[in-house]
Amino acid sequence: MGSIAWSGKDVLSILDFSREDLETLFETADDFLKRPGSVPKTLADRIVATAFFEPSTRTRLSFSTAALKLGAKVIDLSPDVSSVLKGESLSDTIRMLQSYSDLIVMRHPSEGAALLASEVSDVPIVNGGDGSQHHPSQAMLDLYTIRRLKGRVDGLRYAVVGDTRYARTAASFLYGLAKYKPASVYLVSPEGLRMRDEVKNSIRKLGLRTEELDTLEPVLGKVDVIYMNRIQKERFPDPNEYEKVKGSYRITKSLLSGAGDAIVLHPLPRINELAYDVDDLPNAAYMEQARLGVPVRMALLHLVMGGGAR
Amino acid sequence: MGSIAWSGKDVLSILDFSREDLETLFETADDFLKRPGSVPKTLADRIVATAFFEPSTRTRLSFSTAALKLGAKVIDLSPDVSSVLKGESLSDTIRMLQSYSDLIVMRHPSEGAALLASEVSDVPIVNGGDGSQHHPSQAMLDLYTIRRLKGRVDGLRYAVVGDTRYARTAASFLYGLAKYKPASVYLVSPEGLRMRDEVKNSIRKLGLRTEELDTLEPVLGKVDVIYMNRIQKERFPDPNEYEKVKGSYRITKSLLSGAGDAIVLHPLPRINELAYDVDDLPNAAYMEQARLGVPVRMALLHLVMGGGAR
Amino acid sequence: MGSIAWSGKDVLSILDFSREDLETLFETADDFLKRPGSVPKTLADRIVATAFFEPSTRTRLSFSTAALKLGAKVIDLSPDVSSVLKGESLSDTIRMLQSYSDLIVMRHPSEGAALLASEVSDVPIVNGGDGSQHHPSQAMLDLYTIRRLKGRVDGLRYAVVGDTRYARTAASFLYGLAKYKPASVYLVSPEGLRMRDEVKNSIRKLGLRTEELDTLEPVLGKVDVIYMNRIQKERFPDPNEYEKVKGSYRITKSLLSGAGDAIVLHPLPRINELAYDVDDLPNAAYMEQARLGVPVRMALLHLVMGGGAR
Repeated sequence: MGSIAWSGKDVLSILDFSREDLETLFETADDFLKRPGSVPKTLADRIVATAFFEPSTRTRLSFSTAALKLGAKVIDLSPDVSSVLKGESLSDTIRMLQSYSDLIVMRHPSEGAALLASEVSDVPIVNGGDGSQHHPSQAMLDLYTIRRLKGRVDGLRYAVVGDTRYARTAASFLYGLAKYKPASVYLVSPEGLRMRDEVKNSIRKLGLRTEELDTLEPVLGKVDVIYMNRIQKERFPDPNEYEKVKGSYRITKSLLSGAGDAIVLHPLPRINELAYDVDDLPNAAYMEQARLGVPVRMALLHLVMGGGAR
Repeated sequence: MGSIAWSGKDVLSILDFSREDLETLFETADDFLKRPGSVPKTLADRIVATAFFEPSTRTRLSFSTAALKLGAKVIDLSPDVSSVLKGESLSDTIRMLQSYSDLIVMRHPSEGAALLASEVSDVPIVNGGDGSQHHPSQAMLDLYTIRRLKGRVDGLRYAVVGDTRYARTAASFLYGLAKYKPASVYLVSPEGLRMRDEVKNSIRKLGLRTEELDTLEPVLGKVDVIYMNRIQKERFPDPNEYEKVKGSYRITKSLLSGAGDAIVLHPLPRINELAYDVDDLPNAAYMEQARLGVPVRMALLHLVMGGGAR
Repeated sequence: MGSIAWSGKDVLSILDFSREDLETLFETADDFLKRPGSVPKTLADRIVATAFFEPSTRTRLSFSTAALKLGAKVIDLSPDVSSVLKGESLSDTIRMLQSYSDLIVMRHPSEGAALLASEVSDVPIVNGGDGSQHHPSQAMLDLYTIRRLKGRVDGLRYAVVGDTRYARTAASFLYGLAKYKPASVYLVSPEGLRMRDEVKNSIRKLGLRTEELDTLEPVLGKVDVIYMNRIQKERFPDPNEYEKVKGSYRITKSLLSGAGDAIVLHPLPRINELAYDVDDLPNAAYMEQARLGVPVRMALLHLVMGGGAR
């Protein structure tokens, strides 16, 4: 019997899921990792459509991989995206896709695109990222990675670093954290890239307190998790502003010498904000994080398509 | 035992199929819709290649979906199309694809491209649209939609509206209608987008009489089927010409208040010629038409690959 | 039991494989061709990732086809390549792909890219072409084609014609030939497109003697195999240089009247260097060569993924 919380549900935002729902997801992912030979073909004879209106290698390919491992067939809109965007409304495109498929994984630059899609679609919509706030499967795999590497999410101290304003990974992660009881959460970003009030208000209402910092140094050695986010040059109206701050938000091997056993997460791809010399440190957790994208997304697809909790 | 008319055949134009062949197709599609759990894996262990030299979301994805549902694997040329077009002849590309696959679905901007492909290919070619006249699977699903929603194709009154000159969907639909006995067929288009003489002569020889009109109003309330076609700005040498006519060929909710129970078809995607306020009317049949693309294309692939009539 | 030489191995260069390894490959391909109904599903439940940082229709699609025929699922990076190339290092991209898949087939413009990939990947890397020297699966299928059409590789006389400097197909083919005992090998190219010293030194050390010629005519009628390579205009710093030589390296029907039963190979796609009037001659072997890409790549994937020699 499928999970009542998950079966048939759209996955638009991590805010729509309770801590218990997330635990169901994580235990299912654990089971898939522990017994790879026993993964059920929950999606056999099902078609999953991927519709990425913004490029995304990791999200698209890990969802495709997850769907294929569960027995699904995958159709991909991507090769036609440029032409589609020219002429057709999102709701027409989604109505077409939902008549061909049993579930749609989509990404879109506009806030609310996944919600709009869910309103015209008879099949579940999984939001692979839209606008600047929601990327639920990313937040789920982030929490899952912490849970596996640190044994728990509660009681830890977190630094969310870099572009906390435009990076949907940062906002989604905070929405996810708000389901738990972290000991402290520091938001470390240059002034122009501070978290939006909208997000801060939402998480405050959920009972999550955060503290804003200009630099990571003051809390280095105190935090258990450093969640880096990309700093994209194009976010800065003035290129000089970018040049000024980019050094301050760069994680390097020497910086991490004072970090104890904090783990470093990053949704990837990285630009300058995460040095390659970090890769061999025990702190580096981002490759494991990327790898865990597959079992978490398998668990998500399995539960949404009516597979039972495991 | 497979259908003699269909098995192994190239599908280049709906003109090559008799009314009986079409009925075989439609009954097979009916069976696939009625008994989704009994769809045969006719294409198991077969490779279907899709080669779209012009973008086409609906045709490409619905053929892919149809092939996958019948058990095929799909390989797609699209990501390389831009580079292929630069350097290689169509016949070399097709000879490559036919040595990798068991059936090729292709679209090409040039008239006759599918015929050329069929001459160099040992495996069946399915024309997903070439030039300005032929798009057989579209015409088949158009007729199938009418058959399902109106119970028959014969004896009805049709208006084919919009660009009847360049839209291959319009010409193909008329070629399909010519296999039946419609009560009347009105071609409604601005002067510069009238049906080509070549097509008019062909359908006249097949016994289909048509009447040309400048506007839809005179026959609204008299016709059972309104087949809209896109009016693309780029077809007009003078942009002012486009601005002048675009309003006259726009289907809106208020216009349809005088349409009785006529159904509105459109191959989609739509631009301005079909208003969104039509979507909720009982007249709107284009979403159902898009949905029926999958069972019709399943039936087509099934029959061409030697599956029996059902 | 799998082949010790092949199982789990990266396929970076044909130089890494012995003549015996190649014979194992060819016998396996022979078996797949002879008994298509008995092809094992060696890659069932495996994911093959294709990552082409340079477009390549034939190599990408024939590897995909080969993988699908062995039961694999395929994920394809191609739609995102332009965006990936902008921001991410090759090693980050490969680390992602290897955590999603069981084998990676890649192509890259840079010399050594496949080697770099193999150093960061836990899953086998198959080089689908990198830089200007290595394209091992192409050389394998070239040799296999000769073996099937001429019965042997040893003792024959070869002309490698066209751009022997930049065409990785030319260098790889010579590296492959060096595993055998050809009677003679002529390198026929304009001065600016002579084989690099680096390649000549490598094959000399392997015991392969070559002779350089300006034109094909002197050896036409003496050689058993003419291996044409593309001559790309953009390789010439001066367009006039291209215009001067292009005629001399063009294979036509009339030229081949003096070629006896020599077979003509070409990796395709062709530009001007191979006339269409050659296609119907018994000498034309390039379409068969393209077709044999599938069984050879099936054998390669089968052996690398632990399938036994057949």
